[in-house]
Amino acid sequence: MINAAIIGASGYSGAEVFKILLNHPEVRVTAITSTTLQGQPIDELYHNLDGLTDMVFTAYSPSLSASNDVIFLALPHGQAMSLVPELMAAGQAKIIDLSGDFRLEQQEYEDWYNQAHASPELINTAVYGLSELNENAIADARLVANPGCFPTGIVLGLAPLLAAKIAVGPVIATCLSGTSGAGRAPSALTNFCRIENNVIAYKVGGVHQHIPEIEMTLTKLAQDPVNVIFTPLLGPFARGISSNITLPLTQDLDDEKIRDIYRNFFANKPFIKILDSGVVPEVKSVSGSNYCHVGFEVDKRTNQIIVMSAIDNLVKGAAGQAIQNMNLMFKIDEATGLTQAGLYP
Amino acid sequence: MINAAIIGASGYSGAEVFKILLNHPEVRVTAITSTTLQGQPIDELYHNLDGLTDMVFTAYSPSLSASNDVIFLALPHGQAMSLVPELMAAGQAKIIDLSGDFRLEQQEYEDWYNQAHASPELINTAVYGLSELNENAIADARLVANPGCFPTGIVLGLAPLLAAKIAVGPVIATCLSGTSGAGRAPSALTNFCRIENNVIAYKVGGVHQHIPEIEMTLTKLAQDPVNVIFTPLLGPFARGISSNITLPLTQDLDDEKIRDIYRNFFANKPFIKILDSGVVPEVKSVSGSNYCHVGFEVDKRTNQIIVMSAIDNLVKGAAGQAIQNMNLMFKIDEATGLTQAGLYP
Amino acid sequence: MINAAIIGASGYSGAEVFKILLNHPEVRVTAITSTTLQGQPIDELYHNLDGLTDMVFTAYSPSLSASNDVIFLALPHGQAMSLVPELMAAGQAKIIDLSGDFRLEQQEYEDWYNQAHASPELINTAVYGLSELNENAIADARLVANPGCFPTGIVLGLAPLLAAKIAVGPVIATCLSGTSGAGRAPSALTNFCRIENNVIAYKVGGVHQHIPEIEMTLTKLAQDPVNVIFTPLLGPFARGISSNITLPLTQDLDDEKIRDIYRNFFANKPFIKILDSGVVPEVKSVSGSNYCHVGFEVDKRTNQIIVMSAIDNLVKGAAGQAIQNMNLMFKIDEATGLTQAGLYP
Amino acid sequence: MINAAIIGASGYSGAEVFKILLNHPEVRVTAITSTTLQGQPIDELYHNLDGLTDMVFTAYSPSLSASNDVIFLALPHGQAMSLVPELMAAGQAKIIDLSGDFRLEQQEYEDWYNQAHASPELINTAVYGLSELNENAIADARLVANPGCFPTGIVLGLAPLLAAKIAVGPVIATCLSGTSGAGRAPSALTNFCRIENNVIAYKVGGVHQHIPEIEMTLTKLAQDPVNVIFTPLLGPFARGISSNITLPLTQDLDDEKIRDIYRNFFANKPFIKILDSGVVPEVKSVSGSNYCHVGFEVDKRTNQIIVMSAIDNLVKGAAGQAIQNMNLMFKIDEATGLTQAGLYP
Repeated sequence: MINAAIIGASGYSGAEVFKILLNHPEVRVTAITSTTLQGQPIDELYHNLDGLTDMVFTAYSPSLSASNDVIFLALPHGQAMSLVPELMAAGQAKIIDLSGDFRLEQQEYEDWYNQAHASPELINTAVYGLSELNENAIADARLVANPGCFPTGIVLGLAPLLAAKIAVGPVIATCLSGTSGAGRAPSALTNFCRIENNVIAYKVGGVHQHIPEIEMTLTKLAQDPVNVIFTPLLGPFARGISSNITLPLTQDLDDEKIRDIYRNFFANKPFIKILDSGVVPEVKSVSGSNYCHVGFEVDKRTNQIIVMSAIDNLVKGAAGQAIQNMNLMFKIDEATGLTQAGLYP
Repeated sequence: MINAAIIGASGYSGAEVFKILLNHPEVRVTAITSTTLQGQPIDELYHNLDGLTDMVFTAYSPSLSASNDVIFLALPHGQAMSLVPELMAAGQAKIIDLSGDFRLEQQEYEDWYNQAHASPELINTAVYGLSELNENAIADARLVANPGCFPTGIVLGLAPLLAAKIAVGPVIATCLSGTSGAGRAPSALTNFCRIENNVIAYKVGGVHQHIPEIEMTLTKLAQDPVNVIFTPLLGPFARGISSNITLPLTQDLDDEKIRDIYRNFFANKPFIKILDSGVVPEVKSVSGSNYCHVGFEVDKRTNQIIVMSAIDNLVKGAAGQAIQNMNLMFKIDEATGLTQAGLYP
Repeated sequence: MINAAIIGASGYSGAEVFKILLNHPEVRVTAITSTTLQGQPIDELYHNLDGLTDMVFTAYSPSLSASNDVIFLALPHGQAMSLVPELMAAGQAKIIDLSGDFRLEQQEYEDWYNQAHASPELINTAVYGLSELNENAIADARLVANPGCFPTGIVLGLAPLLAAKIAVGPVIATCLSGTSGAGRAPSALTNFCRIENNVIAYKVGGVHQHIPEIEMTLTKLAQDPVNVIFTPLLGPFARGISSNITLPLTQDLDDEKIRDIYRNFFANKPFIKILDSGVVPEVKSVSGSNYCHVGFEVDKRTNQIIVMSAIDNLVKGAAGQAIQNMNLMFKIDEATGLTQAGLYP
Repeated sequence: MINAAIIGASGYSGAEVFKILLNHPEVRVTAITSTTLQGQPIDELYHNLDGLTDMVFTAYSPSLSASNDVIFLALPHGQAMSLVPELMAAGQAKIIDLSGDFRLEQQEYEDWYNQAHASPELINTAVYGLSELNENAIADARLVANPGCFPTGIVLGLAPLLAAKIAVGPVIATCLSGTSGAGRAPSALTNFCRIENNVIAYKVGGVHQHIPEIEMTLTKLAQDPVNVIFTPLLGPFARGISSNITLPLTQDLDDEKIRDIYRNFFANKPFIKILDSGVVPEVKSVSGSNYCHVGFEVDKRTNQIIVMSAIDNLVKGAAGQAIQNMNLMFKIDEATGLTQAGLYP
């Protein structure tokens, strides 16, 4: 049995880690922490868990690293980087950080997140946890930087194309996120009356902090610099990211050849589904699941390719991928505890 | 391993049985039938299953009863009653019928469903499958009549009160169903533009075919005739039934005493959660799950009690309860394969 | 031209008064006040007004009563009762209060709103502004207490029945409100992720402050005490109230006779539409409009009648009815500026 | 008074023309036709009109052109082109065609709509009715080809940039439409259970029939060929189009200079609102209105501009713009009957 603690379990990502682990046959959650809700049962906050657990939020302590095999850090950006050194010192637990703190080089982090990095010396020990791209490094890692939700959807959609050098940037990515991406705290933007029947762009014009993460990963795959013009939008749905990505092809290729490239690239990856011609990814199809659906069409008139992917931002885009990484790190089947199909209808 | 066939697997209820059984450790689905979609892979119709199965819809045959241990019948009302006799003759499979065909006495069936019953001689062999009320009879049954979605929500909300004779009718039940309750076929009523931002009552005025089923069950519990005035509404959500039920109390009882009556009645029933005082059931909390949440408040001014329950109409209200009944019939833990928590957020 | 000021124009009700008056041919809005947003243009807060006005929120002053013909008070409960005396003293403006402060007798107000009334001497001068019931008194009033949203929907549904003494209580009213009823301030309850795909009851068990207002009005109509058991629910839609009301009939009457009673009661009332047999009110049909749709069915088995009504809580349930009352007070056609049909689809 | 007939009034666009004209002070609707619903009152189909009209659907006849001043054709593509010649021959009515039949040159029409054009000789007499670009020609036209919904949103967003030659193609346009864009007929795609909580791309890869219309108009503005890679998506909302468009700037310009170019281009155009820096267009802000909101941000890293626009597809994208064009053709204020603000919340 793997003992796990979740730091920051009151937010949507941390609570989703908890919910998935409730049905994971190899894991026992020993502690769920919250700064503000200590003493409160988690099922008072998340009524879908009513009566399914008697765990209550407790205080964070570095010693959780001594009493657990794995620590999930599900904190707002800027907090994990201060805790990771003491957690690594206090025990042997492997650490999976769901925030952006260990995904970028120091300079890029400081430029895009507007704050000094508290533990720059650890950045290079962190392994970027896009499970399908980094499987071996993740398996050996002590510290995994779990990817952002938008980067997961975009990179899984583009990786085969760029690795095969059959498409290049600039990449135009227009992505819709469900409102759970904005977190649990009520806000004017996520108020039902505001976002229902609506679509709202935000951080438009090259300012979203996921851009360097996307470009870093795509550049590595392409072995050439890739630029991304990224427009995130919030839509009237709770879960999911619909990524719609346009970029030039460098050759004339028929669709089935491209589909083969995708299928080969992701062969034996249980969570990536390359859809048949004429089928488009739908966020509702992956809602509540760890699957990523990928489809594409070529605009023959301009030889640009439109790639579409769908993930659940809280699962493959956060908690599910974190658990997939945990499975890799503990050398158990990467799909363990994650085979739930999407909720439809 | 239990071999199972699903007759009518293209509808929402049958497909939900299939989806849940994909993760059931003791069951193998051997056949999924459809009258109109034979030859089509189920994951072309239900994209949440994309790549998770290679099963295709096949034709129905009575011999499925010989090659399987259990048959789920997920057909529109009026069809199962013709198939059950031949299925019972052709093999030994236990049969779980999700339609209304075997829930009522012959006369009531014919009055409310407006058609002659094709197999009246079998009605009395059928066991009414409200799992929490009929556990032993279900365990011994060859043929189970799985309850309707509205009866499940209403009866689970009222059973402890009526059994304890602390409340009587008439019962005023105003219940909202998600649009999945109206089935998979597109219709003017369930078109997005019509039902989003809307609430639409239907079959108002004592004409919904679930009324005799509710009254039959409540009357049995109360050991006295119970009348129900039932108003169903369709709301702008996909899954779930919110039951809001008002009826007179026969005594002055404090809330905690009533709560104790509920908790005792449902002791050891893993899927029924009696909520604490001040907490109300929410359909979203049970979405995608087999749980039923029950709460209540007493209107002290009038000594009427307002009971609220929430279920997922496709799970506890149909497919999930059918599988719970299958578990009981095969003497395995009734929660097997059904422990998924509700999807929230 | 009627000069109007709106006190508390940053909330949904006040802003809706402003929006409707933009297209009212006889009214000029001279001032919109806000305690917290002074100096901010209203179209920065309500982007549907972008470029349609250059008005900014200003501070409240009693002298607005001297410079205007009418004052709309759209403040949270408990604030208007302190301002009305000084507004009445400072000028001649007629006053329409959208809050609950002047709807009830002092004792009832203090019991249900849990605070002392600041201006009890004015309560009896206030006219209860349910336009269709009190037309003449409203026309002569200096101070109108605009009804609550739930009372408007319920009373318009029941008035003909109770006035004709063909139905009696107890009245079981289960009503769904869109989330705009909870106001503009973001909250956990109205967060998109919480309420989408959900239904949430609140203030269950005879504790909602609209109960005495409903009972007062129904009792007056019936000339006999009427009890209401009222269950309000919040649903996943922005605007509208769906009222579903069950009560016993005192006689056997055929449906068309009852429909005649309704049509006669509301003859010449432009905003009340009695639907044909078989048609049910839908909140989406009246969304954005001042219309109230009323339908009913009789449960012949129990001789109870189920009455259904639909209004837009912000229009007929608040701002629209306030303007209808203003029209009556200024002796212009009561429909002026209010003939917009509901938004569908 | 302008007498108007609406051919095809049972569809969403035709019914929206009817609804808006109900409150238009200069127009009387004399006939509403439908092929399939003759004899049915329109308010039985559109319950938002309940009791507001007693008009019933009648049969189409060319003589409507003799008895009316204007004819609105709101038919599916491919039908208007057969009726226009006989309508022009039978009377003097001006004709506004909401379909795609007269927007394109013959060859392009036949290529993209996959059918022969029935009246090619009339194509050149038709004036393309994008009100803000063609005001004078529209005023003098006998036959107006009302623009498509997507072209309206995209072209209004890009016109100032291309006319000023500060941006060039290729244009990457990723646009979300509400489901009313798919029409009134129920379909698997627009079933509530399918599209709620979902985003579905369709006609991806350079195959949507609006592409030649967009390219034709942009090319005329730019006086240079402009290519568009257009990805339409259906989202879980009823009304509105959110256009998100990325294209390269040809110069370094500061944002306020670009904003000035927009404001000058659309000076005195009452329905186009150029939003301030930092404000993004929201479809809900224009829901139910004829306004178009336009905003933009420059990605300084790549010198590409992201332009966003929001319209109501049924109003500015169809019925409202048709009435705006009618106003222009009859030389009355172009905003007459169209000043309703968007419905928010």
